[in-house]
Amino acid sequence: MWKQNIMFLRQTYAFRNYQTVFKSLFNTTEVQWRIHKASFCSLRKYLDITSKVPTLFSTRRLHDQKELLNQGQYEQNCNTFTFRTHTCGELRPSHTGKKVTLCGWVQYHRLSKFLLLRDAYGLTQCIVSENSTLPNIPLETVVKIEGTLQLRPKDMINSNMPTGEVEVLIENLEVLNMVEKLPFNLRDYQKPKEQLRLQHRYIDLRFPEMQSNLRKRSHMLHNMRRFLVESHGFVEVETPTLFCRTPGGAREFVVPTRHSGLFYSLVQSPQQFKQMLMVGGVDRYFQVARCYRDETTRPDRQPEFTQLDIEMSFTNLDGLLSLMENLLYETFIKDLPKPPFRRMTYKDALENYGTDKPNLTYGLQFVNIKHLLGEKSTNPDFAAYALPYSSKLGRLTTKTKNTIRELTKKYQVKVVVNENISKEFGFELFDKIQINKEDSCIVSMGDNENACLCLGEIRELLASLLRSKDLLVVEDNVQPLWVVDFPLFVKGENGLETCHHPFTAPHPDDIHLLDSEPLKVRSLAYDIVMNGNEVGGGSVRIHNVELQEKILKMLNISPDSLSHFLNALKSGCPPHAGLALGIDRLVSLACNAESIREVIAFPKSHEGKDPLSGAPNVITEDDKAYYHINTVENV
Amino acid sequence: MWKQNIMFLRQTYAFRNYQTVFKSLFNTTEVQWRIHKASFCSLRKYLDITSKVPTLFSTRRLHDQKELLNQGQYEQNCNTFTFRTHTCGELRPSHTGKKVTLCGWVQYHRLSKFLLLRDAYGLTQCIVSENSTLPNIPLETVVKIEGTLQLRPKDMINSNMPTGEVEVLIENLEVLNMVEKLPFNLRDYQKPKEQLRLQHRYIDLRFPEMQSNLRKRSHMLHNMRRFLVESHGFVEVETPTLFCRTPGGAREFVVPTRHSGLFYSLVQSPQQFKQMLMVGGVDRYFQVARCYRDETTRPDRQPEFTQLDIEMSFTNLDGLLSLMENLLYETFIKDLPKPPFRRMTYKDALENYGTDKPNLTYGLQFVNIKHLLGEKSTNPDFAAYALPYSSKLGRLTTKTKNTIRELTKKYQVKVVVNENISKEFGFELFDKIQINKEDSCIVSMGDNENACLCLGEIRELLASLLRSKDLLVVEDNVQPLWVVDFPLFVKGENGLETCHHPFTAPHPDDIHLLDSEPLKVRSLAYDIVMNGNEVGGGSVRIHNVELQEKILKMLNISPDSLSHFLNALKSGCPPHAGLALGIDRLVSLACNAESIREVIAFPKSHEGKDPLSGAPNVITEDDKAYYHINTVENV
Repeated sequence: MWKQNIMFLRQTYAFRNYQTVFKSLFNTTEVQWRIHKASFCSLRKYLDITSKVPTLFSTRRLHDQKELLNQGQYEQNCNTFTFRTHTCGELRPSHTGKKVTLCGWVQYHRLSKFLLLRDAYGLTQCIVSENSTLPNIPLETVVKIEGTLQLRPKDMINSNMPTGEVEVLIENLEVLNMVEKLPFNLRDYQKPKEQLRLQHRYIDLRFPEMQSNLRKRSHMLHNMRRFLVESHGFVEVETPTLFCRTPGGAREFVVPTRHSGLFYSLVQSPQQFKQMLMVGGVDRYFQVARCYRDETTRPDRQPEFTQLDIEMSFTNLDGLLSLMENLLYETFIKDLPKPPFRRMTYKDALENYGTDKPNLTYGLQFVNIKHLLGEKSTNPDFAAYALPYSSKLGRLTTKTKNTIRELTKKYQVKVVVNENISKEFGFELFDKIQINKEDSCIVSMGDNENACLCLGEIRELLASLLRSKDLLVVEDNVQPLWVVDFPLFVKGENGLETCHHPFTAPHPDDIHLLDSEPLKVRSLAYDIVMNGNEVGGGSVRIHNVELQEKILKMLNISPDSLSHFLNALKSGCPPHAGLALGIDRLVSLACNAESIREVIAFPKSHEGKDPLSGAPNVITEDDKAYYHINTVENV
Repeated sequence: MWKQNIMFLRQTYAFRNYQTVFKSLFNTTEVQWRIHKASFCSLRKYLDITSKVPTLFSTRRLHDQKELLNQGQYEQNCNTFTFRTHTCGELRPSHTGKKVTLCGWVQYHRLSKFLLLRDAYGLTQCIVSENSTLPNIPLETVVKIEGTLQLRPKDMINSNMPTGEVEVLIENLEVLNMVEKLPFNLRDYQKPKEQLRLQHRYIDLRFPEMQSNLRKRSHMLHNMRRFLVESHGFVEVETPTLFCRTPGGAREFVVPTRHSGLFYSLVQSPQQFKQMLMVGGVDRYFQVARCYRDETTRPDRQPEFTQLDIEMSFTNLDGLLSLMENLLYETFIKDLPKPPFRRMTYKDALENYGTDKPNLTYGLQFVNIKHLLGEKSTNPDFAAYALPYSSKLGRLTTKTKNTIRELTKKYQVKVVVNENISKEFGFELFDKIQINKEDSCIVSMGDNENACLCLGEIRELLASLLRSKDLLVVEDNVQPLWVVDFPLFVKGENGLETCHHPFTAPHPDDIHLLDSEPLKVRSLAYDIVMNGNEVGGGSVRIHNVELQEKILKMLNISPDSLSHFLNALKSGCPPHAGLALGIDRLVSLACNAESIREVIAFPKSHEGKDPLSGAPNVITEDDKAYYHINTVENV
């Protein structure tokens, strides 16, 4: 029996798929998943749930789950303007006797009698009449089936499948397009390697997770637009992507033109445009904007990405944060806590979690032990933090210790692991810094910021170790957090550099320090962090031209490169603030996706390569001549 | 009195502005405008209407005008998350006694007592109390005003201004940002030259027409999204813009990468991606897509532009056209005739109007006179068409005749103007081809297609001459028209070229002619034309890989450059069709804008130059080295 179940399971979806789909369906975490798993008594159960997968496709689902914008369900009709009368997901006993036309892909057939037809909305069983047999067509062939809906015999009802009570008696089957052998199988969810999936993305998109992810993405963006346009009077304005270089930003792609030696730059964000819109009186702007950064060497980055870009006039930090909190609360697919969201200063984030994007779904908070360290405690540049954790984890493995050793080198700090604590500090100190007797502890000491950052990385390392042994309580929900009061400047190789971008307003309480102690000046920049991911960031902007010129000078940026922008500030620029949300990251959090590539229809793989078309490619000599360029080899 | 009125008028908006705004406000044409103009008895009247301009800003207006999607009005609040309590357009007598805070630009002040405050939503009069005076602040300064709303004295009420019954008694006025002298004046609408407007677009955007255009654009796109997502289950999918070269299309911008000699191409449309989405089961796709074409030498073109890109599986030509008709009928800002829209074959369009995008808001239809021309009528390559028009136009000027002479050279055909008709054909023929006695006539003869195209250009020339003398009845409404049955191929320099794109399906009735007479094969391509503008186009696509390979071969396109696409067609591709609407053109028609630049926030000027930032610019040697390119001078 068990073996039979396994076989049957293979014929539909594999266990691994069920696990992933289950999690996204019910928004469960690893922990909850284990509880559910334990409560099921047989593999057969998994299968039953699995056959519910197609309901995920229903675009109405988001609105069932959460009455977004109090609009209730849409009265969508997915069959208008097509050959079909119904999708493969919607037929029910109430349709019995109806002539129906379905179109889709052959998911499965058996005994030349039964056929399971799939489209983006679900699966429907189709059968031929007693004296007929099905033609021998390859799986994934595209067919149109005309027939009459009938009830299944009682013992054939699959009550866990939305269309499980009915079947279509085939009267006409038309092959719309044959298939050749596919590079991977769609029935068994033995997920192929990512490279193969991306190379044949047009097949990979048929998997239920990809269908669900793309539809969730479309819905979340649509609901964000409804919130902004319909409830709050925002205007979506499209701004150019072919522009001039932004000084002091990330590396920007260049685009040669037919004017010899002249290039556009692809914008890394609509920053300058949206600020100029504020000057132009478009006081509530947003855009779902395509942005470009040539950062293809960094993992999990795309050369082009999408951000929800927002800017508002006559507001301040609190106003902007409140807007975003309400937007996310109303439109994020998963439940979020009611606004206002928690806020934390950059300083507190660093000194308690060792990062500017702390994951607050678990504890593991630092304890400042500097005051316990005698003489050293008077050194203003010295810091010492302890990180207590469950001693049930036991001694750290050699591998873990090696990783920690590398971190101490990277940050040039000293780290003391649990077993060396008493040796290093004496038993008394060990006693004082323990939160409770069951905890072990790691200490990081050294230069202020580095001591924190090093312990921050160790915190994440420990969290994953503790999690793998069920020794860490991890909250289920998404925990949004504002990180505020970032420094305005950081020390760069050639003097001051901007921490956010050159248009960020200094904190009004620190503005008197601009000349004397610029590195102590906080800014009005803010990041929104979800479970350890920075999903957006923004700032109150400088609207005074003298202040802007001063900041540019401090950053050693020539005002000539921004003369148009400075002129705009002189022409009646209102106070304004804004933010950009990283949609790829935000949707991947909402979909529990492992990578942003899972929520992008056609992503590039590492190094910005497109496995589908092979782009980037060589271009013709004619194109090079037209654009007055030559390829040169550099060392 | 008259002089005073003129003066006062100058202080608000000039006459020219009123005319334009009036037209867009009431969707009138030139003709209607003249009627309205005549019905007004004094210049003062113009002014009163002008003060209504701010209602244009109300984002609710579109929904007042046309109950789009039967949703009624949104309950928008444009003040949330800001300092202000109200916009400058919404205060009414019912607010009397309320403490209000307004933010905006100083539009006008008088006698150090009155101040007219403007924001994107309207104008509100603010006054200081008896013993106070206003500070002397430059116009266009950004201020925040706190005060109490009071009724204006009865004799001061301006009943034509939405806020004309009330005024704000200023209790506190805070200057938020001072301005320097602006390059052009915003109070008098003496429209500056376009170059100056584009160079200071951040000021130009404050003009009511630009505000109205951008808001109409945002609303139309939002309503299109609502129609597609909420009523018809479409999914918006974002596709890459960094891709590989599309063979046989327009010139594509190239983007060098850090891989020496390898380039992306910026997509000219998401064509391949949307077809691959169909293969992937995303059966109802749309995207408001940014597209790129390096056609900057053509007038009224932008290097980047927006299209509403749509594709649908399991449909045919009728299904797709019906979808688009309903979409446009529901969401186009002006009224359209009820679907179905008129259809015309490419052949009929050419033989009756001499163009594939005929303007049907006026008559001026060709008469085929070939059968009257004796011997020549037996020559299959010869064509002769007459164009009758009102003889009240009189003899054509030398300038017009010169233009016509150039057209005959361009098309290599013979054109006979009215006064030479009898000399050329004899009086009998002249008699026969006249529609009525009051008409004059022009004849074009020569090679089939060229005779039509030449007369088509003459038709447009005559229309504008007749219009300028009120001799042509021009329909008021937008007249949408489908042009269908385009040829699949055109004769190019090196053999067959595609008329639409290589993925267009041949007409099933002509498929037997593919080998024998390919130039006679019609395609399943279609264009949507509005008042002489092509606003969109699309086709039923080829879904059969053998047919696609055959067409590519006929077009001399190497299948290697499209191997990923051909593989997709082999992997279970459903029948599908699609279309792309040119949003810039569509919105400019809806806004009665003279150019697409009037509905784009930051357009490029001719030759793709950005007058604002000066882009394209020189780039650094570092950037060139990073991208392995060198600038070369070509002859």
